[in-house]
Amino acid sequence: MTVPKRSPCPVASMLDILGDKWTLLVVRDLLMGKQTYKALQDSPEGIPSNILAERLKRLEAEGILHKERYQANPVRYHYRLTDKGKELSDVMQVMVKWGNKHIAGTYTPAQIKQFIQQITG
Amino acid sequence: MTVPKRSPCPVASMLDILGDKWTLLVVRDLLMGKQTYKALQDSPEGIPSNILAERLKRLEAEGILHKERYQANPVRYHYRLTDKGKELSDVMQVMVKWGNKHIAGTYTPAQIKQFIQQITG
Repeated sequence: MTVPKRSPCPVASMLDILGDKWTLLVVRDLLMGKQTYKALQDSPEGIPSNILAERLKRLEAEGILHKERYQANPVRYHYRLTDKGKELSDVMQVMVKWGNKHIAGTYTPAQIKQFIQQITG
Repeated sequence: MTVPKRSPCPVASMLDILGDKWTLLVVRDLLMGKQTYKALQDSPEGIPSNILAERLKRLEAEGILHKERYQANPVRYHYRLTDKGKELSDVMQVMVKWGNKHIAGTYTPAQIKQFIQQITG
């Protein structure tokens, strides 16, 4: 089930799908290479598990990610962005630029890279 | 009062301020030149008045807009984007591009312009 559109405005239509404080963080993590439910749940913002599960379903329904079973018992999935999802990278990049310029204390792309290397060893 | 940050991630920090289905639509309208409460309320998405009032307060607290009294009795304000707010135009542009490419039936920039000319006469 996909979400209904409020208007023909592309910004409003995009926000109908992605406009909340969690969904783009899931996309961010997938863009950075996270693939499993566990990895997505371990992000520093602490997404509640029920919200993560709901957002993954919604993103799949919207064709932004697809999931693939990699283990049968218990069932486990890999989550990967589709091309439509990968192209959100452009949106993410301008958000990073705006955030770095206007919000004190936010990590630059270089600091983000360093941070990820630290936590992933 | 500004919102607390969930993490040093610039995307998360930006979503702490702007990540909901209404706030960026208010910014969109201000970017397109709307200035009054009435004009902001008249957008096709039908923002509820209490939400509009709350979002205008939040955007002012975050330094994204400033308001200026233009009438004393009854009190009326003009709302205008600061430079920090105006620079969200970059974010808006990539969102339009993504929306046009991936969400069927969304207006292109040319169609948006035409639509605005129609409703503003």
